[in-house]
Amino acid sequence: MNAREIFYSKDLENMRRMIKDRKVLIGVIGLGSIGAVVASAFLFKGFKVVGIDKRRDDIVRMIKKKSKDLHQEDVVRKILMQSFGKKFFVEEPKPEVISDLDVYIVIVPVEWRNDHVDTSVLEEVSEIIGRNMRRGSLFILESSVPPGTTRRISRDFLERFSGMIAGEDFGVAYSPERVSLGRAFEDLVYRYPKIVSGINDLSLEAVENLYNTVVEKGVLRASSLETAEFTKLIEGVYRDVNIALANSLAEIASLIGVDFWEARELANTQPYSHIHMPGTGVGGVCLPNYPWFLISLAEVFDKKCWCRDIIKIARDINSSQPKRVVEKIIEGLNMLEIKDYKNVKICILGLSYRGDIYDIRGSPSIEIARSLREKGFEKIFIHEPYLSKDNLDLGDKIVATKDLEECIRGSNVILISTDHSIYKDLDIKKIKELAEEKKMLIYDGRNMIKTLEVVDRETEILYGGVGKSWRKL
Amino acid sequence: MNAREIFYSKDLENMRRMIKDRKVLIGVIGLGSIGAVVASAFLFKGFKVVGIDKRRDDIVRMIKKKSKDLHQEDVVRKILMQSFGKKFFVEEPKPEVISDLDVYIVIVPVEWRNDHVDTSVLEEVSEIIGRNMRRGSLFILESSVPPGTTRRISRDFLERFSGMIAGEDFGVAYSPERVSLGRAFEDLVYRYPKIVSGINDLSLEAVENLYNTVVEKGVLRASSLETAEFTKLIEGVYRDVNIALANSLAEIASLIGVDFWEARELANTQPYSHIHMPGTGVGGVCLPNYPWFLISLAEVFDKKCWCRDIIKIARDINSSQPKRVVEKIIEGLNMLEIKDYKNVKICILGLSYRGDIYDIRGSPSIEIARSLREKGFEKIFIHEPYLSKDNLDLGDKIVATKDLEECIRGSNVILISTDHSIYKDLDIKKIKELAEEKKMLIYDGRNMIKTLEVVDRETEILYGGVGKSWRKL
Repeated sequence: MNAREIFYSKDLENMRRMIKDRKVLIGVIGLGSIGAVVASAFLFKGFKVVGIDKRRDDIVRMIKKKSKDLHQEDVVRKILMQSFGKKFFVEEPKPEVISDLDVYIVIVPVEWRNDHVDTSVLEEVSEIIGRNMRRGSLFILESSVPPGTTRRISRDFLERFSGMIAGEDFGVAYSPERVSLGRAFEDLVYRYPKIVSGINDLSLEAVENLYNTVVEKGVLRASSLETAEFTKLIEGVYRDVNIALANSLAEIASLIGVDFWEARELANTQPYSHIHMPGTGVGGVCLPNYPWFLISLAEVFDKKCWCRDIIKIARDINSSQPKRVVEKIIEGLNMLEIKDYKNVKICILGLSYRGDIYDIRGSPSIEIARSLREKGFEKIFIHEPYLSKDNLDLGDKIVATKDLEECIRGSNVILISTDHSIYKDLDIKKIKELAEEKKMLIYDGRNMIKTLEVVDRETEILYGGVGKSWRKL
Repeated sequence: MNAREIFYSKDLENMRRMIKDRKVLIGVIGLGSIGAVVASAFLFKGFKVVGIDKRRDDIVRMIKKKSKDLHQEDVVRKILMQSFGKKFFVEEPKPEVISDLDVYIVIVPVEWRNDHVDTSVLEEVSEIIGRNMRRGSLFILESSVPPGTTRRISRDFLERFSGMIAGEDFGVAYSPERVSLGRAFEDLVYRYPKIVSGINDLSLEAVENLYNTVVEKGVLRASSLETAEFTKLIEGVYRDVNIALANSLAEIASLIGVDFWEARELANTQPYSHIHMPGTGVGGVCLPNYPWFLISLAEVFDKKCWCRDIIKIARDINSSQPKRVVEKIIEGLNMLEIKDYKNVKICILGLSYRGDIYDIRGSPSIEIARSLREKGFEKIFIHEPYLSKDNLDLGDKIVATKDLEECIRGSNVILISTDHSIYKDLDIKKIKELAEEKKMLIYDGRNMIKTLEVVDRETEILYGGVGKSWRKL
């Protein structure tokens, strides 16, 4: 495909010229939701990009069908579809494809699973790259990983299977993705500086030059691979701990009869106060993993370090939050003297773990639904406006629907679990009209209902929520 | 003094006119560091203010001597001194003085002491006001207190001792001070909106009108006294928890050989990341109290609520931080093979609990010094640039000095405990020159030394710090 020029070498002028002339062939390994964003950013800036993914056929099919399932961000879909076959190619991880690339940008899942960090996919990818890479190429890891992973795993595998020396024959860099799905393309290209690090000065130089071309806010150098790896994790742990704090303060507020959301908004008018939003749980594939990456690493050095405690307790609080929401619903049903769980219809609003995006990985709503099922509830529906089809079978007889009215109709319990903007249009009256039930429980996990009103004297409505005390309307 | 007009009444027009014409006589009860700021803000806006404090004679003496000890903020000192005897008066809490006032702004200490909230000063003040207040006055509490305190303590005492009814005969409001000492006047008058709440609509109206005249950013209404009380506490708890998180992450960083301060700076370039600064401990009279106010209140409703856990663990982490610094110093001395603690001279840089202000209440440096004393160290000095005299005897044979050279001279251990800006001028070479010791330990608790350099081959310097691994220079 491209001329067999050497990209990574001491000839910095040549390196810069190759970048400037877009002669560097970029491989993005892992075309998941973030990988697709990185690929589209390089395409947007004029590079030729090969996306490498085992799901190659599925991806190509989605591109050809112009399916929205390819990616939730319009700009990413548009770029990938328009570039396909011209500047953008999708391949399976085949030796001849791998060996053709100048840069390997690796974004594959590294997760906490069964009490250890699962780096198997990263190992596999590092091995196949190592076996096929050319001298003068650059390896960049973007996945969030425990500090030391780029050096101990990727570098090691690359050297072992290539027989070459990292730093000398090829570059090794780490540059964390730190974008937020839903606006990730914009975050990457326009909004945040990119953090870069290298195993040696030349690797750093290479990754810096490359990303300076793509990222408008420029790059920031970290002094070591480990510093950059650590940096990404602490951004996430900060968030996880602060959501746990918000969940805790919300519970205290509801105990003492204060509306947490009002207090939070007031407190945050002080410029150093950034109190987070509580909710029904923390989902996704980031926040639930990062704390364990740090905790397990700290334990290697100091088995019982106090330094793990706050991170651990925050994680426990957040992972128990769905269970607590279920307890609140049962508390509310007791107050309404509804005992026949079998005939209670529950409508959970929102399947995505975050508002206004579609991402159901680690969704608290699924956990809540399963836990309700265990308690004997049989009619559980989840509404999700961003489903690509009408219904989605989630197993355990739990069905997600795109139809809001279908979900609410005849429901005794309405639980708002995701802060999709469309739920702001709901009010007590509208819910009551749709539900047509005489006894209803509305539990607002995301402060979506702004006005509480009495609908009619005959309907008994109990309203509560995360950070809100129970109120009979 | 002023005409005996009724300030607090349903005649809103009259209330507004009295404020506009500055006919409202303001009493500030408690002329401590924050009370003095509030008094000066009202004076600045043209009101007549009576400061009420048991230390009346001391305060008047400081004003007359133009002493800097009156207040650390130049603008506050200037206003109080210039207004004294004209618009500003200082009195002891005498009945005839109290009964003359239209507004009582109360800023007295409410602290966590011996496992309970000590409201004794607030009770005393509320009683004396209750006994002497006129119909038509307004009571405003500004101290940080557990939610419910204004209603249960102040309202109750005022009604009981006045025989009048709160809301009807006099107003009761809560409006938290939320300024930061060192720039508190600016925070209050120019930088933050003021949160106000009232026991009834009329009290809210009164406090709102009053503060709208003083605070350029205007006021924000909280829907209840308790919401406003809660709001202030969560601002503080957010900070305490995030400092504990920073201390924890800093420890993990130092274990794995990453400089926490570098990672923190990089992480915070992501606009949703606000990772705090770690340090040698949290001092002052705010942060160490607020968590307990919330914890003890939560326990009233739910004895073992999970909602306390993260707040409690954060408090434990922060209150143990000085002890951990002492352990690090001993670890370092072991590495340098210095065993004769008696002859080790230790210089602690900074006595104030926060940089660039003078406030030694709850100072971690004092705790560190005492703990070192217990371990057998005998030559402990603390440097504090903001001392008003040359030396300050802190008891336990610990002396603070204003003389930096005196502190460092001959020291084997330099501990940077406070981030006073002047310490940024220190570098390894300068410290070494001042100390003239062959074996030295520098422990940087606040990331003040930016460049590490080898001074000479004969001097053995061990450098470490909060969020930094040990390094031999």
